[in-house]
Amino acid sequence: MNKNRLEAFSDGVLAIIITIMILEIKIPHSDDWAELHDLWPKFLSYIFSFTFVGIYWGNHHHLLHTVKRVSSGIIWSNMNLLFWLSLIPFATGWMGETHFSQNTVITYAVLLMICGTSYYILHKVIQANHKADENMKKMHISQERKGLASLVLYSLSIVFAFYNTAISGGLFVVVAAMWLVPDRNIERMLEGEH
Amino acid sequence: MNKNRLEAFSDGVLAIIITIMILEIKIPHSDDWAELHDLWPKFLSYIFSFTFVGIYWGNHHHLLHTVKRVSSGIIWSNMNLLFWLSLIPFATGWMGETHFSQNTVITYAVLLMICGTSYYILHKVIQANHKADENMKKMHISQERKGLASLVLYSLSIVFAFYNTAISGGLFVVVAAMWLVPDRNIERMLEGEH
Amino acid sequence: MNKNRLEAFSDGVLAIIITIMILEIKIPHSDDWAELHDLWPKFLSYIFSFTFVGIYWGNHHHLLHTVKRVSSGIIWSNMNLLFWLSLIPFATGWMGETHFSQNTVITYAVLLMICGTSYYILHKVIQANHKADENMKKMHISQERKGLASLVLYSLSIVFAFYNTAISGGLFVVVAAMWLVPDRNIERMLEGEH
Amino acid sequence: MNKNRLEAFSDGVLAIIITIMILEIKIPHSDDWAELHDLWPKFLSYIFSFTFVGIYWGNHHHLLHTVKRVSSGIIWSNMNLLFWLSLIPFATGWMGETHFSQNTVITYAVLLMICGTSYYILHKVIQANHKADENMKKMHISQERKGLASLVLYSLSIVFAFYNTAISGGLFVVVAAMWLVPDRNIERMLEGEH
Repeated sequence: MNKNRLEAFSDGVLAIIITIMILEIKIPHSDDWAELHDLWPKFLSYIFSFTFVGIYWGNHHHLLHTVKRVSSGIIWSNMNLLFWLSLIPFATGWMGETHFSQNTVITYAVLLMICGTSYYILHKVIQANHKADENMKKMHISQERKGLASLVLYSLSIVFAFYNTAISGGLFVVVAAMWLVPDRNIERMLEGEH
Repeated sequence: MNKNRLEAFSDGVLAIIITIMILEIKIPHSDDWAELHDLWPKFLSYIFSFTFVGIYWGNHHHLLHTVKRVSSGIIWSNMNLLFWLSLIPFATGWMGETHFSQNTVITYAVLLMICGTSYYILHKVIQANHKADENMKKMHISQERKGLASLVLYSLSIVFAFYNTAISGGLFVVVAAMWLVPDRNIERMLEGEH
Repeated sequence: MNKNRLEAFSDGVLAIIITIMILEIKIPHSDDWAELHDLWPKFLSYIFSFTFVGIYWGNHHHLLHTVKRVSSGIIWSNMNLLFWLSLIPFATGWMGETHFSQNTVITYAVLLMICGTSYYILHKVIQANHKADENMKKMHISQERKGLASLVLYSLSIVFAFYNTAISGGLFVVVAAMWLVPDRNIERMLEGEH
Repeated sequence: MNKNRLEAFSDGVLAIIITIMILEIKIPHSDDWAELHDLWPKFLSYIFSFTFVGIYWGNHHHLLHTVKRVSSGIIWSNMNLLFWLSLIPFATGWMGETHFSQNTVITYAVLLMICGTSYYILHKVIQANHKADENMKKMHISQERKGLASLVLYSLSIVFAFYNTAISGGLFVVVAAMWLVPDRNIERMLEGEH
């Protein structure tokens, strides 16, 4: 029951984060197609962030699935993750507003790194509190690998932002793609339960 | 349990989408009745979108009712649907702001088409994952028919927008009415379960 | 289960309505106490609406408690109620912005009347679908009486707004007080179940 | 079941409060690092409020855990608490906007005092309705002590705001730290149940 409320609150916060970003795309006053065209950086950064928050939701979902007992440590590392995720609408809007300029792409990449690290901390805290069976262990290892690869890719995207922000954007797509590919280990774990 | 969180997250996102649209109707500074009168295109487009998102919620509700096992495919086709629905407040506000001008009505109709197609994809993914009994099959067929009819009507509304946007608006009403009429097949399916 | 999602969606929409109203109170740029003082009509209208939406949530809660089977009629009369309630942040902001000027107080009173009527319709639809035991019948009668009294008081507040909007405001307080007094019948009904 | 809806509604409102505060941090038009730097008072006040609302969520969670029967008294003292918490985004934004100027820090401290008092009232109403076992009693006593200490610290922060608002800010940090330290009594109570 404790766990249900932790999930419900996290779902609420994630649902609001993912949805209020659209409010940052201001409605044009004229009906000119050019107005819509000029908004492409905002829509593109919105697509990025919608995808990232969606991925977090999906993984959070699987991770909390393995939780049996909610401790203070889990509550607060979850709150820490939600805090950093709540800054995504700001970073997204700033990147869109300035047409993916260098500083804003760096800020966005740094924020994603912190979110990734916070997720990793939550992961570790949950792992420390629970004995995992074989399938869960495989899932944990697979998630950890992806997590570390993401941090490396975010670091690279920060470095490349000094040369060409398009490469940074490309690396964001690589990270997203890596997480979007269905995870055989998670699927197997879930199936094992049924 | 998985399913409950998918429903809860979708409900959250849909509830936020349907409610934040009202924030796009800016509060007038004077208390003149004329101010309220000038807002009619915004209120009208709000009514349209509230109805459409409400219909999606109702159908999503019935569709997920039939889900027994949540796969990655279902999670991501659901996320895809939510993404397009999340753009509705923007398209609604733009249409209201420009008094239903041609370009914005076309944009709105195209968005509704993409939402309809995304719903159809989710429908197909769920169907592929589940064996349906007789009542569910009837519901699936009925929903598919309505879905295709909607796509045809949206296409027509785009064509007519080049002549008269009022006809496009009328076609939106026809689509909404078609979905609002209680679906005997769904009612029967639900009753069959009790 | 159906019912749970109807409750969850309604709770989501009501929670958003009650909370986004605060966004209409714009943050002053200076830290002068006078700035805070000038916001009193906005805070007052916020208190009114928070109370009214809170009352709707409480009653909605009790009303849906009695629902055993969710029909299309219930879904759509609930959606109709949520639509009108979703206009409350607009009417609240307008009334606050113009310091409770006549036209905006009338608009607010009319909106509350429509919300009350929509609640009454939902009530009737639910009653038509369910056999009520003795306690429920008492609750239904008590709610109906309060509902009718509210409509009369709202009508009076519209009439008085032409003379003095303070009287209309006083009548809003009377309506709120009437609903806030704990309802012995509901309490008894709930106790009867335990 | 009653209780579930009370929790769900409270979670919804708290999730929205904690998340919409980010909307008050307006996105800069230029990509200059100076723009980000100038936003530090807004980010700092956001961190304060995120932490405080997070603490309320955690404690609310534990407190409602002990509720067996939802009375009108509980519903309305909960609604009272949510009302005051809903003003936090305003007070937070004002304090950030004016760089923690005296009047806004006092306003913030007064609001936190009222929130604390409202929580205390909810606590007392719930206690009056339920027989507590040994572990619960310890939790109640521990929460009461912390609550009273918070009120004293808030009072001090108001007094110090007349000399130096940084001291007030430091006292806010002390209050937060006091609540963030995991509560052995709550942990023990929860463990006792499993």
